[in-house]
Amino acid sequence: MSGPRRRPTDSKRERRDLGQQVEGRQAVRELLAAGRRKVHDLWLSTDADDAPVVAEIDALAQGAGVRVRRVPAEQIERRARTNAPQGVVAFAAPVPTSDLDALLADPSAFLVALDGVTDPQNLGAVMRSAETAGATGMVLATHRAVGLTPAVAKAAAGALEYLPVTFVSGIPGALDRARRAGVWCAGLDADGDQSVYDLSVADAPLVLVLGAEGRGLSRLARARCDVVASIPMHGHIASLNVSAAAAVACTEIARRRAG
Amino acid sequence: MSGPRRRPTDSKRERRDLGQQVEGRQAVRELLAAGRRKVHDLWLSTDADDAPVVAEIDALAQGAGVRVRRVPAEQIERRARTNAPQGVVAFAAPVPTSDLDALLADPSAFLVALDGVTDPQNLGAVMRSAETAGATGMVLATHRAVGLTPAVAKAAAGALEYLPVTFVSGIPGALDRARRAGVWCAGLDADGDQSVYDLSVADAPLVLVLGAEGRGLSRLARARCDVVASIPMHGHIASLNVSAAAAVACTEIARRRAG
Repeated sequence: MSGPRRRPTDSKRERRDLGQQVEGRQAVRELLAAGRRKVHDLWLSTDADDAPVVAEIDALAQGAGVRVRRVPAEQIERRARTNAPQGVVAFAAPVPTSDLDALLADPSAFLVALDGVTDPQNLGAVMRSAETAGATGMVLATHRAVGLTPAVAKAAAGALEYLPVTFVSGIPGALDRARRAGVWCAGLDADGDQSVYDLSVADAPLVLVLGAEGRGLSRLARARCDVVASIPMHGHIASLNVSAAAAVACTEIARRRAG
Repeated sequence: MSGPRRRPTDSKRERRDLGQQVEGRQAVRELLAAGRRKVHDLWLSTDADDAPVVAEIDALAQGAGVRVRRVPAEQIERRARTNAPQGVVAFAAPVPTSDLDALLADPSAFLVALDGVTDPQNLGAVMRSAETAGATGMVLATHRAVGLTPAVAKAAAGALEYLPVTFVSGIPGALDRARRAGVWCAGLDADGDQSVYDLSVADAPLVLVLGAEGRGLSRLARARCDVVASIPMHGHIASLNVSAAAAVACTEIARRRAG
């Protein structure tokens, strides 16, 4: 069995996750289709069904010169770090990370910054939504945040392969740098002071800042936002979950930029 | 210890879940705040932190005459059916279910139908997004779909308490009934033939139909839709996940109805 057996043992270990282990069919297909990083090893369950995506993974791997190992499902389950690897796991080079200043220099910058999001499903889902909305990068904090774990990679459904990611020591400092670079900072929070539909900076260079599940934007991040927008609520529940809110805000920004 | 020990043992068992077990702070707070159904028992961990929401749960329970049992965290963990009950679990009467025809008769009907969604996180997240968008009901299939399990209740973050739910034997049949009642059926799918922003029926009586994770709308459900809309994609990934897509579509419908 190649490669060290990898299990998250502590938070330091967790922070070094940079998408090296990819589980789930969509995520592995995009890993191979994007061809951006070396795939060292690819395990496919001997009892994988004949879904088109499995044949596609097989074909993409052959085309990329990646050897597909057919292994018993139990071997994949043992090695998996998500609940449902769907009979496939890939071991790859880490995703390349980007430099914040380079991302900020893009005249059409549309960055998404996560301030303290700790749930890997949410982080992955936000990355997927950001990528489909044409975001130009993701700003993540190295401390007190989740790394690019297998659960993140799976929920991102391939967005890890395309969406540039930069790690910063803290979101407030990154927002200071954005402001100095002439990039607008727009927070999203349930108690924001204007509707996301009235966001006048939607088509300017922009960092969209999303707060943690439950707590919302931190005081320090909020203080650096030029505007804090909210999504109008029409029911009894006071807020959307962070990944739903991200999808709505990113899609609205994409609509405004496309229009 | 009151009540039978409940564990999902088979799919039949699963289908009978009607929100009787509620875990997670937001979901339990809304259960108590809504006051729509009897709460038989409420367990709060003896080592719950002093977050405002815990005090709120305590106060709401006192106000409703619900006895709060302080129990060791391990007892809650043992009984929990979600990964993170957050130190609180409530046992309640089942959520009342609604009649499809009654929901269809509402002149401002805005129903959300799920065609084969099997992931409880996704079902719960869709319910939360639908409720915040002012949807008037949720249409779920009894077969091959998930019931209102603790995981659904937790992800719904309280939407179970407010959003009317109807169970039908199949989504295609429910859509036939909607059409006969003069209610438009709008599917949502990555390959839909018009943009969700051009959905002309957004402010008419409407059923929004969402397909399963990965597979999308079934052939039978799609054939009954008056229109199939999609969310414009601006990146490499071909689609949003079902709960993100639901959030975007529900929010857009809410915007059109409010405008």
